Amino acid sequence: MEILIYENLNQIQKKEILRRPAVKAKDEISKIVEEIIQDVKKRGDEALIEQALKFDKVTISSIKISQDSIKNASKRIDKELKKAIKLAFENIKKFHEAQIFKKIKLETTKGVKCELLTRPIEKVGLYIPGGLAPLFSTVLMLAIPAKIAGCEKIVLASPAKINDAVLFCANLCGVDEVYQMGGAGAIAALAYGTQSVEKVDKIFGPGNAFVTEAKARVSADIEGADIDMQAGPSEVLVIADEYANAQFVASDLLSQAEHGADSQVLLVCLSENFAQKVNDEVQKQLENLARKELASQSIVHSKIIVAKNLEQSLEISNAYAPEHLIIQTQKPRELLSGIKHAGSVFLGAYSPESMGDYASGTNHVLPTYGLTKTHSSLNLADFSKKMTVQELSVKGFKRLGKSVAILAAAEALDAHKNAVELRLKSLKEK
Amino acid sequence: MEILIYENLNQIQKKEILRRPAVKAKDEISKIVEEIIQDVKKRGDEALIEQALKFDKVTISSIKISQDSIKNASKRIDKELKKAIKLAFENIKKFHEAQIFKKIKLETTKGVKCELLTRPIEKVGLYIPGGLAPLFSTVLMLAIPAKIAGCEKIVLASPAKINDAVLFCANLCGVDEVYQMGGAGAIAALAYGTQSVEKVDKIFGPGNAFVTEAKARVSADIEGADIDMQAGPSEVLVIADEYANAQFVASDLLSQAEHGADSQVLLVCLSENFAQKVNDEVQKQLENLARKELASQSIVHSKIIVAKNLEQSLEISNAYAPEHLIIQTQKPRELLSGIKHAGSVFLGAYSPESMGDYASGTNHVLPTYGLTKTHSSLNLADFSKKMTVQELSVKGFKRLGKSVAILAAAEALDAHKNAVELRLKSLKEK
Repeated sequence: MEILIYENLNQIQKKEILRRPAVKAKDEISKIVEEIIQDVKKRGDEALIEQALKFDKVTISSIKISQDSIKNASKRIDKELKKAIKLAFENIKKFHEAQIFKKIKLETTKGVKCELLTRPIEKVGLYIPGGLAPLFSTVLMLAIPAKIAGCEKIVLASPAKINDAVLFCANLCGVDEVYQMGGAGAIAALAYGTQSVEKVDKIFGPGNAFVTEAKARVSADIEGADIDMQAGPSEVLVIADEYANAQFVASDLLSQAEHGADSQVLLVCLSENFAQKVNDEVQKQLENLARKELASQSIVHSKIIVAKNLEQSLEISNAYAPEHLIIQTQKPRELLSGIKHAGSVFLGAYSPESMGDYASGTNHVLPTYGLTKTHSSLNLADFSKKMTVQELSVKGFKRLGKSVAILAAAEALDAHKNAVELRLKSLKEK
Repeated sequence: MEILIYENLNQIQKKEILRRPAVKAKDEISKIVEEIIQDVKKRGDEALIEQALKFDKVTISSIKISQDSIKNASKRIDKELKKAIKLAFENIKKFHEAQIFKKIKLETTKGVKCELLTRPIEKVGLYIPGGLAPLFSTVLMLAIPAKIAGCEKIVLASPAKINDAVLFCANLCGVDEVYQMGGAGAIAALAYGTQSVEKVDKIFGPGNAFVTEAKARVSADIEGADIDMQAGPSEVLVIADEYANAQFVASDLLSQAEHGADSQVLLVCLSENFAQKVNDEVQKQLENLARKELASQSIVHSKIIVAKNLEQSLEISNAYAPEHLIIQTQKPRELLSGIKHAGSVFLGAYSPESMGDYASGTNHVLPTYGLTKTHSSLNLADFSKKMTVQELSVKGFKRLGKSVAILAAAEALDAHKNAVELRLKSLKEK
């Protein structure tokens, strides 16, 4: 890892070291994705079945997984794993239930009742990538809040053949339908519907560049579907002082690095000596990792930044606006109020990212690529929407009526004024 | 207005009558907007000054309005108007202050603290269109929640020459800077910054097709800025039963129609007789409107749908998912629980849309074009973002550690498992 002394950098360099790599030109991906979307819109299930053979090398006869298959998956899962999943389930459920929106209702003026209410998004689609590491934990992170929010229909898509733990979690969370379909085709099917896939209003979940492009495309189409957020490469920033355990810090940096070659890993610490200690530990731990190859590629372009004090560490972190922010200092909570932008914050030596990724209860779907400056971590509100209500009594209407007529007139909105004045007039006549 | 009996329609017709008109092909607009954006990115203030002359026919020497000019605007405003603005201000403030997010903090497992916190979006830009009707009310709707949310910098842009009431409202709400610039150029300046315009993180506010396209473009660019929502033509759906006042209903339909030729106006009622009464009233009131021309064009493609009962009325409304939903029935509140999708709901004869547009306290920035199925009415949360925090004590960590290691192993995430296990090991050694 490159070690940089922040104070020795000029303004441009300071900005440069926190810059994320440019997202690769995607003209080719864009073209392929558009073709896949059109094919699914045109041929529906037939296209999906062909794509399963072409991309996932699996022959399937139907898209929908039977309820029996889903239930049978449970039998094939290790007892210890089931127990661990249930523990995670309970914590995630508790944290998201605590987010249930309490309606807001008040009289702004006597006789003028105003309310803010939520309504669930009716139909949601959850996408879970296939591949080597079956992300069953993401099923929990998406399906639990969907259920709590009260979504009427929750469907899940994942490439064939779907991992047993994914099916187990879907069943545990009360997912209504599971479809074996993957990639851009799955996103198209969720956005537009097919013979056996129900069209949904909003699509959630991670995916590769094809899935990301497909999500961008269907969300830009008014006939398509809304999406949770645009996902970039995963990232972590660790702030550590001299009290931190270099071994722990190194293990957290590597947790992030193993996600992929494009993972972003940054350590901000307070001395070159500590920086070197962590760097040595990273090299040591890296040797024994199953995903050594991937993690090494990420580590190569990762940086350790030496700040002059904790205040400057926070400044660097806020400029970067990380997805995951781990704070391993003597008094981690003292830094919390200074954090302006982060997806999820991990306080202290015993709060490694793994905890939030799986089981502390917080959601692991987080904004990346600096989007924490404007976007929220996935939370219950993403599965519902808010509407306002107003109800004026005759007295309340009279209290505001004249003012509203004046305001409408000043904006040259005659009919708005008229709608008020003819009511005022009718009340006088009574 | 066309009168249709819902029961006489087939499924395709039912869908067809609720379809919004396709947004016009915008290739030409798109090209012009892209040129304007590039010009502002390249030449900054110089480009904006040229654009003011070209599009707004105004010669300006600087973009920023002085604090003196802002304060002087107040002196030129009618006393009655000022009073009305202040009344609106107070109600909007009360309703949005009631939305302040109370942090969520709980232990999901003993020793595992999880929190959901908000942080304001640092810098926000508010765009207020120019034109005939200066939308000073929109200044209130955007700047009041921005201030309550705690945004550090609130700037406002509007085409030269800016209306006095707009400046008055900006000052009243505590806007930090006002820039005289309009259209796509203003959006580009807010998204990228210029010599005198501060770059912001998120842009709010309505605008014409050029502004809408510019907002779409800068929000798709990771170096640009986030936006509030994509705005389509404004729309209203009124549900009325036999107890409704046809005159009132007609005035509400026209309030919507006067916004523009592309405004969407729908009435759902329970008899042809009532439909005809409202239609006659619409024609009568239309005669005296200042914006008769615009409103007539909207009314031509508007529809009255006769439903068989209130339940079917709700079904129609939910299928349409209107921006504004006005309910003028004998017991309007009884329908509230059946409303699945709406931006803002107006209950009863004395809650015309004008009230919410100006002064009841609710926000008048609402999703259009059916987006109420997935999007919220503008509210305080749009000016901030949520982040999660977790802090595990040693005991809390021990309670979850083993399970997390099992989960990470099942997802083949070795380093995640390692980050937990080396901590567990170090605790045993102590």
